[in-house]
Amino acid sequence: MFPFQNIITIDKGSKTPLYRQIAISIINKIRTGTLKAGTPLPGTRELSKLLGVHRKTVIAAYDELHAQDWIIVIPRKQVTVSKQIPVLKAKNWSQKEAASSYQNTFSLPFHKAEEKTSDKKILTAPEILIDDGYPDIRLSPIEDLLKIYRSYTTRKYAVKNAIVGTTQGTLKLRNELVNYLSKTRGLNITADNLLITHGAQMSIYLASQLLLDKDATIITGNPDYPIANKTFARTKATLIEVAVDENGLDMAAVEKICKKKKITAVYVIPHHHYPTTVTLSVQRRMKLLELSHQYSFAIIEDDYDYDYHYASSPFLPIASGSHNGNIIYMGSFSKILGPSIRIGFMIAPKNFIEQCTMLREEIDFGGDGYMQNALAELIKNGDLSRCLKKTKKSYHQRRDYLDALLKKHLGDSVSYSLPDGGMAIWIKINPTFSVNKLESVPQLHIKRIHTQENAFRFGFASMNEPELEEAVLCLKAALEN
Amino acid sequence: MFPFQNIITIDKGSKTPLYRQIAISIINKIRTGTLKAGTPLPGTRELSKLLGVHRKTVIAAYDELHAQDWIIVIPRKQVTVSKQIPVLKAKNWSQKEAASSYQNTFSLPFHKAEEKTSDKKILTAPEILIDDGYPDIRLSPIEDLLKIYRSYTTRKYAVKNAIVGTTQGTLKLRNELVNYLSKTRGLNITADNLLITHGAQMSIYLASQLLLDKDATIITGNPDYPIANKTFARTKATLIEVAVDENGLDMAAVEKICKKKKITAVYVIPHHHYPTTVTLSVQRRMKLLELSHQYSFAIIEDDYDYDYHYASSPFLPIASGSHNGNIIYMGSFSKILGPSIRIGFMIAPKNFIEQCTMLREEIDFGGDGYMQNALAELIKNGDLSRCLKKTKKSYHQRRDYLDALLKKHLGDSVSYSLPDGGMAIWIKINPTFSVNKLESVPQLHIKRIHTQENAFRFGFASMNEPELEEAVLCLKAALEN
Repeated sequence: MFPFQNIITIDKGSKTPLYRQIAISIINKIRTGTLKAGTPLPGTRELSKLLGVHRKTVIAAYDELHAQDWIIVIPRKQVTVSKQIPVLKAKNWSQKEAASSYQNTFSLPFHKAEEKTSDKKILTAPEILIDDGYPDIRLSPIEDLLKIYRSYTTRKYAVKNAIVGTTQGTLKLRNELVNYLSKTRGLNITADNLLITHGAQMSIYLASQLLLDKDATIITGNPDYPIANKTFARTKATLIEVAVDENGLDMAAVEKICKKKKITAVYVIPHHHYPTTVTLSVQRRMKLLELSHQYSFAIIEDDYDYDYHYASSPFLPIASGSHNGNIIYMGSFSKILGPSIRIGFMIAPKNFIEQCTMLREEIDFGGDGYMQNALAELIKNGDLSRCLKKTKKSYHQRRDYLDALLKKHLGDSVSYSLPDGGMAIWIKINPTFSVNKLESVPQLHIKRIHTQENAFRFGFASMNEPELEEAVLCLKAALEN
Repeated sequence: MFPFQNIITIDKGSKTPLYRQIAISIINKIRTGTLKAGTPLPGTRELSKLLGVHRKTVIAAYDELHAQDWIIVIPRKQVTVSKQIPVLKAKNWSQKEAASSYQNTFSLPFHKAEEKTSDKKILTAPEILIDDGYPDIRLSPIEDLLKIYRSYTTRKYAVKNAIVGTTQGTLKLRNELVNYLSKTRGLNITADNLLITHGAQMSIYLASQLLLDKDATIITGNPDYPIANKTFARTKATLIEVAVDENGLDMAAVEKICKKKKITAVYVIPHHHYPTTVTLSVQRRMKLLELSHQYSFAIIEDDYDYDYHYASSPFLPIASGSHNGNIIYMGSFSKILGPSIRIGFMIAPKNFIEQCTMLREEIDFGGDGYMQNALAELIKNGDLSRCLKKTKKSYHQRRDYLDALLKKHLGDSVSYSLPDGGMAIWIKINPTFSVNKLESVPQLHIKRIHTQENAFRFGFASMNEPELEEAVLCLKAALEN
């Protein structure tokens, strides 16, 4: 008889019940062809002796195998492997079998992303992480948010309420945003003009998928936000990069291009352009609007960094003025709530939002309805505004503190313009030192390095003063080495 | 002089500070061309009188306008609208101006989704909602999950830890899943084979985008999960539908197609096929694996409903056996944690996971790192398994209770096979009554109605016994009317 005691591996210390271990062992031997269709299995009494387990355990294992049709049981007579099991032509493909099937390479053709991302992959938290502009979750109203969240999940109709309108975003949050965005950004919209997304990046993705294709041309800045550019490029659209100077995207250059070529869309980051942190001047905002009407292109206004301004109030969005509806405006709450709470929004005419909602349903159904409703509550009761006021003060101080540290410790090695808002300083390193060398400092990780500009963004908002000092001293040591 | 008191609207009851209201009014008048470049503005003393506000308020408003370059201030002499403002050719486009710009239609060409979704849009929670298989969040371990979550956000290095590896999923969760999935599903993988997604739907989307295009052909079931089919169709791939009988997808039919045509992938829902709730038999599972090797197609194994089985243990995934790596396996935790906590996973060889991760970065960067780590903790400390055991018992009782209710109240009007697992019963309505009529019952909302099969899924897990009874009596009333 087959040496069953050798092919059935059981581990009495495992959390998996013994009967299930036995069943899995037998299934695996059937699947690999070791136990073929029709092979008789030992009786329960015999197998229990062979394995040194209680007979009831073997009975339970056979019940399981029988319930799943792996075996045929003729009571008091015989147990055999089901004859319905296809006879495996095992040698065809299991010859050079890896230890785990998933150690094999996916060997069928598939579309590959254009290029590897330039970000270094980090797997464990480094001692010092310089991000490119994250908020400090220790200052965020996340405690209040989660308190409200928890209160929802115990209520009656909890399930019902969480799925009401979640693909587009819960109506409660959208209604609240209609008021909030009118008050804070002068946007005149209805709940139909809003799609709640997982942050500005998802808005960029959705808009690109609907607007762009191989026949389209989009203008972006140079330098620009690399992930947005990758998203545009994935649609096979042509990208034209236009210089970004101290007033933002160069509109004279945009106009020149429009005169020669049909443009589908212009992507603009009006506040604290990524990566250089400049703000688009009002003159250029108005010029862009004028050009968009004259040459019929869409404006993708990525206002991810609207909330933090230290010198004056933020500029009103281009989308808040009078226009023909072809502006897709996007913002995010991740910059207030923390990078893990990914709630953003897209604003566009109803017909565009409807189509984006349908695409979004295919991507992930929708977001977390409870979290959206909890955010709505936080906006309504004023906690969000109060928190914003408090953190604005802290980030302002942190920006100035980082400025002082940089002047004191790195005065000769770096240059930068202090931004009047946002969460990062764009630091250019003097040409004698390559920014790439910073990648080899073991305790330091810089989230995104811009090799071409020999520069990086130093996110100051997520660090308190001692942390900022530690990071600058670490940079100083690296640059002086 | 210009009637400034008429064009500047202020509301002393508003939460927006007065100075900002004044600034916004003036900006809007400049933007619409009412105030042209070079137009002089009244002095601060004069304007404060005209508006009946304190002079300091006007000074603050002018400071704001000046900081944003809308106006030029020559101290003690003159304030004028900046000459840099482009002169607007207003009539070109603001002639037929809507009350809100976003009431306009997006008028440039863009890609539209193939068809309107068949789901009725619900905006407010109906009295009775019959979902298609949701868990009951009142039974989920969400309290514990959120407690752990909150503890993370106050820790030192909170920010750093949350962004470590979040596009692919935190390493902590992936490592935990390697053990968990080995124990529960017999999957032999490493953390490199895992991508954490927003649930099974995102896995379907990512895999489709990489695998399929206009030259590809995918086999799906009939009837099948409509959103998956829409996702496949978006890639312009050819869809071939194969009958699903009481043993799942008909493999003889799949083989017949393979003999005639190059197949790229087969989409299969092995446990409780959507919508009909049948489970793919072991014979067919093995046949599918054999065919995939013989004809070199990928298997997309959507095992969204692995966790709930009332008769026997779940069948081991096809992906858990020996294969060449061309199986993309996907699962979800939303069925245990609740529909709003969207955490799922995709398993594939490393090279495929890497490319999916890059695409996912463009879609939304990644998920919520804290939530992922909190889930890892819940798995590690055994709370998740304990909860699963408890809810399995409840859902089993609810399934049987619904069965009894249906027999008692709707015996003559419906037919169904009781599923041995999952969270829904597939209910066919007798042909004398059209399932579409249920859409007009005001207090009732059925999440997804299948017109062609005159059927719908009755999700029994999210309702307790009184709620189930209420829903069945509501159906009875509708069917008898």
